[in-house]
Amino acid sequence: MRDLSAGAGLLSINTATVRKQADLLGIVDACARHGIGAISPWRDQVAAVGLDRAARMIRDAGLKLSGYCRGGLFPATGQHVVQARDDNRRAVDEAATLGAPCLILVAGGLPQFARPGSTPSKDLLAARQAIEEGLAELLAYARQARLPLALEPLHPMYAADRAAVNTLAQALDLADRLDPGGSALGVAVDVYHVWWDPELYAGIARAGRARILAYHVSDWLVPTKDLLNDRGMMGDGVIELQRIRMAVEAAGFDGFIEAEIFSERWWAEPIETVQATCVERHRTVV
Amino acid sequence: MRDLSAGAGLLSINTATVRKQADLLGIVDACARHGIGAISPWRDQVAAVGLDRAARMIRDAGLKLSGYCRGGLFPATGQHVVQARDDNRRAVDEAATLGAPCLILVAGGLPQFARPGSTPSKDLLAARQAIEEGLAELLAYARQARLPLALEPLHPMYAADRAAVNTLAQALDLADRLDPGGSALGVAVDVYHVWWDPELYAGIARAGRARILAYHVSDWLVPTKDLLNDRGMMGDGVIELQRIRMAVEAAGFDGFIEAEIFSERWWAEPIETVQATCVERHRTVV
Repeated sequence: MRDLSAGAGLLSINTATVRKQADLLGIVDACARHGIGAISPWRDQVAAVGLDRAARMIRDAGLKLSGYCRGGLFPATGQHVVQARDDNRRAVDEAATLGAPCLILVAGGLPQFARPGSTPSKDLLAARQAIEEGLAELLAYARQARLPLALEPLHPMYAADRAAVNTLAQALDLADRLDPGGSALGVAVDVYHVWWDPELYAGIARAGRARILAYHVSDWLVPTKDLLNDRGMMGDGVIELQRIRMAVEAAGFDGFIEAEIFSERWWAEPIETVQATCVERHRTVV
Repeated sequence: MRDLSAGAGLLSINTATVRKQADLLGIVDACARHGIGAISPWRDQVAAVGLDRAARMIRDAGLKLSGYCRGGLFPATGQHVVQARDDNRRAVDEAATLGAPCLILVAGGLPQFARPGSTPSKDLLAARQAIEEGLAELLAYARQARLPLALEPLHPMYAADRAAVNTLAQALDLADRLDPGGSALGVAVDVYHVWWDPELYAGIARAGRARILAYHVSDWLVPTKDLLNDRGMMGDGVIELQRIRMAVEAAGFDGFIEAEIFSERWWAEPIETVQATCVERHRTVV
């Protein structure tokens, strides 16, 4: 298990963590000041400052990338199918331009939520089939761009509206079917989504170094007041962060540890406070 | 698949669904008026009117029981271990007195939430071990009382504070270890908790008639505004109720279909409205 106590070199900040405090330029500046090793930017935050400018400012600040957020949202009907395909291909291209190690994929839930305007359905099994088909198609494109895809299983409470891929085993089954023995399609392990899973440690071991393309941390608060924007700062909740990181590193993962915290509470703090707290928690409890 | 369109004879009302509108007497009366076949009472609602009186009023109204809510909450430390054991034994005795077909068990999460006052811990694996040990001990008692136990896996969003048994497979693994080949320990399948599970249909088939002791319905709303008390009325959400019921009945389940809706929205309606709506949805969308 790696020693994180010395500094923030292995810490990455997912830019959504401070999306309400600053634009991408401000976030990059703050990360550099705090000695943070990497960032994982969101597409809308990159678009707001311009792709080439974003790539340059990140490089000039000496920051690495731990991922690019995000593509996916596959279930769709009618014209939305083609729009989703084209949109996902652009995401791959942007990730390649930025030099990201992978594109994070959120699978999407039922079509009316994944791609609004699509024909409503309650057929979860059909949504999962659409995810597999969309993923297969995008994978062919991403292979050509030599850009790995990291499918992120989301917590089951998001199954309807955000992602119908809800366990690590399910994501790994998809990876094994679409990319047998390969490393073009892997997974993003986010503790917030998977900490509860009775099969978590078996899944991490099964995934191994080849499939674990990203590792995200935050914490589960009790009580959780909002399904979407009440994630905890690392250490403030009940997730056994060190136990999970030990398993992930034992499986061979040696990348950045990315803090991704969607939280009204932390969005209300100054960016300096959030980043300093992420660094301190990274060094002591992650 | 059974035809529910004719009436409410196969419908059971979980008494928590209308807990804010009436006491158990009022709920029993309303169920009888609506031709509802059964109820599943909660311990506190039974205690409020007295156990023997509750048993008599249910019998006199011609209602059956589909379960008794609830025992479990096993993880505990210190004096709370013995208190939990004794409390669970009383629940078994009460269920037997009422003539309930099973006692519903909610496993409990981390000890500080399962049994407040217990020593706080984040060790989810230890909580699961405590659940298995508590369950084994209670099972010995329940066997003597000839009272089946129905372990209910809860949605993963409750893993920390309510139940660290979160999938049907996990509950069935416990049943197979503690009650191999038997029917003293089974499961309660509640669509709200399991609808998202990629292994749901495999789990239902595996459970079969011997293990499925109860079947609960409600619906998953999008958006869900509260983790605890924003369940939907059947048909108002995204759960494929008929597909799941078809699987449960194909596995051999032939018991009551129990409506269990924790909802501030429905608690604000008159009991007549709630029960009439449950009956109508039972006949048309369940």
